[in-house]
Amino acid sequence: MTFGHRRGSTALMLASVFALSATTVPATAHNNNPPKKPDPITIEEQGSFFVGGSVLTGTNGDTFHGDHAFVRYQVPPKARKLPLVMWHGAGQFGKTWESTPDGREGFQSIFLRRGFSTYIVDQPRRGGAGRSTVGTTITVAPNEASTWNLFRLGTWFPPEPPQFFPNVQFPRDADSVDQYLRQQTPNTGPGASALAVDAGAKLFDTIGPAVLVSHSMGGQPSWPMAIKSSNVKAVICYETSFYVFPEGEVPPPVTNASFPVSGTAVPLADFKKLTKIPIQLVFGDNIPTTPSTNPGLDVMRATLVMAKAFVETINRHGGKAELLYLPSIGVRGNTHFPFSDLNNVKIADLLSQFLKKNRLDTYPAKSTPPWHWRPGRNERDWR
Amino acid sequence: MTFGHRRGSTALMLASVFALSATTVPATAHNNNPPKKPDPITIEEQGSFFVGGSVLTGTNGDTFHGDHAFVRYQVPPKARKLPLVMWHGAGQFGKTWESTPDGREGFQSIFLRRGFSTYIVDQPRRGGAGRSTVGTTITVAPNEASTWNLFRLGTWFPPEPPQFFPNVQFPRDADSVDQYLRQQTPNTGPGASALAVDAGAKLFDTIGPAVLVSHSMGGQPSWPMAIKSSNVKAVICYETSFYVFPEGEVPPPVTNASFPVSGTAVPLADFKKLTKIPIQLVFGDNIPTTPSTNPGLDVMRATLVMAKAFVETINRHGGKAELLYLPSIGVRGNTHFPFSDLNNVKIADLLSQFLKKNRLDTYPAKSTPPWHWRPGRNERDWR
Repeated sequence: MTFGHRRGSTALMLASVFALSATTVPATAHNNNPPKKPDPITIEEQGSFFVGGSVLTGTNGDTFHGDHAFVRYQVPPKARKLPLVMWHGAGQFGKTWESTPDGREGFQSIFLRRGFSTYIVDQPRRGGAGRSTVGTTITVAPNEASTWNLFRLGTWFPPEPPQFFPNVQFPRDADSVDQYLRQQTPNTGPGASALAVDAGAKLFDTIGPAVLVSHSMGGQPSWPMAIKSSNVKAVICYETSFYVFPEGEVPPPVTNASFPVSGTAVPLADFKKLTKIPIQLVFGDNIPTTPSTNPGLDVMRATLVMAKAFVETINRHGGKAELLYLPSIGVRGNTHFPFSDLNNVKIADLLSQFLKKNRLDTYPAKSTPPWHWRPGRNERDWR
Repeated sequence: MTFGHRRGSTALMLASVFALSATTVPATAHNNNPPKKPDPITIEEQGSFFVGGSVLTGTNGDTFHGDHAFVRYQVPPKARKLPLVMWHGAGQFGKTWESTPDGREGFQSIFLRRGFSTYIVDQPRRGGAGRSTVGTTITVAPNEASTWNLFRLGTWFPPEPPQFFPNVQFPRDADSVDQYLRQQTPNTGPGASALAVDAGAKLFDTIGPAVLVSHSMGGQPSWPMAIKSSNVKAVICYETSFYVFPEGEVPPPVTNASFPVSGTAVPLADFKKLTKIPIQLVFGDNIPTTPSTNPGLDVMRATLVMAKAFVETINRHGGKAELLYLPSIGVRGNTHFPFSDLNNVKIADLLSQFLKKNRLDTYPAKSTPPWHWRPGRNERDWR
């Protein structure tokens, strides 16, 4: 395959799509009607640190530190008791939770405003946590049509131009699409979910009790992390295909036009730990209910089947999991990234409701201020 | 070479170094005497976006967006007119300017408190800007002894254990060293300074007039960026080895125990643009003044020679460059990262003084609020 190195070619191609869609959605509404400027945000402190990982040591004693996670945190004044730890999905990094492709506030700022400390993760071998103890080769090929389908902006089958779903909650201007496609970043080492689990569990052990908010492939380390660290007090996961089941209770893989969606067996005693915490799975719109020839869409159909099985299994074992299928409550058009879609304040409200319902949004008693670790701080340094 | 995968081996080895040094520097002082909690920070807005880059297009019309920079920004209320754009060096990313290895505030928060908007960059093919349009192979080898020497924490010649310089402004506890070594992250594509220049100039064109603060290899794109965009209103560069000179005026390379330090020729008309803006080069301590057999130290000796030639050439052509050699004003022990050293508030004060002296820290007139671009905002959306 040969490809030209044309600047802005997608923008041009997409521009014609926007021209078509402009009759139904005013693509430049955010420019002609800039939103009311939000109030300033006050933060008690902010910073970043690395957690987990290991050290290679050469025969001569020289070293190589790697396989850690990178974490950026912000703490509001009078923070609620439980911080939110936000964990991105495949091919993404912490940016997932930051400002949206069209420059609105993401969950990072929205929940900071709502009084939560936030810890935004780059998982091992991704983004700022790029120092891997195992080498790799990074290859490049135009592949954003599959991203477009899998992330459910709409459908795109080259050489046809990309199409948006008519009701999609994604901004249709070329700049927003450009920003969105650029927020992908490659693995800098072989994929290794165990490293993510290890670093994640250490993060929870370090910062104390907190709520895990994860996305897509970020669901894969979420369950073992919650099994490993009792400081994971709840898991809210957006659109993951990865679930665990007790040994002997794993449902058959759900075949589809993409990779089969399979459950993973864990010891019953481990699975039982997941029944002790509130769990919410969230899914957006435009997921087919009958088999589709579009692999990106069909894998989500299969995922929804497995997600329902997971919720059923958790609850059968005495847990409290729920599946929030957004269209079922009239919230339409959400993509694979509900937390950065055009209606992400609504999605944040739904998370706030879940946290409130499960008493995960309370404030600490006056005598026990929240504990926010950073390098250089030990347990005597209470805030 | 074979190496073991031992967790914390450096920490253990370093612990013995700390034990030796503890008689002169109380390594855990920051734990026993936690610093006074700083005041909360108020921010008008924060977010992140991508800038620059290009798009590969396959023969079938599928696309691949890459080679952009990633930028995180924070804007304080009543911001000063000129934001600070902070550009990291080789093997590093935006973390360079965030909290320090021992968890104190870095330039990001320090200058936000001082009323400056900050734009923290991950340059193309690094950190969050990892999506490269050209593939690469990432290899791994224990190499932190050379980092230790080059970054001037002290000297480390394996199999001997690492040594700190007696006066080093770096925390000697094992956790801080661990955090510091983990803030390295590899290139995700072939090194390409031109991409950094392109994305950087676009950033300045997008956000408007601003001051460039760069570090080490970040100096390499700094000069062409300032030549390319008239919105670069000043350059402050910490410890770079990369300088430009007018054609015909390039000094001979300065040989040393590492790579020769060479100047780069640019057309006189381009060089003249650098004479229109204030420039400050800053260097720390423990740089040898006579040839050293330690490559990491000796290359800095050569660098200082080239830096002096650059300042002299800029000023001979009518410019206003200065070299701030910190030991000459009694500021001792600084490493290659003065902005995150133990005395980084002092280093920040020196930057503030330079900005004030050159009227780079003024506030905007009431009728012209500062312009802070983000995706989704056009020029009508004045703050």
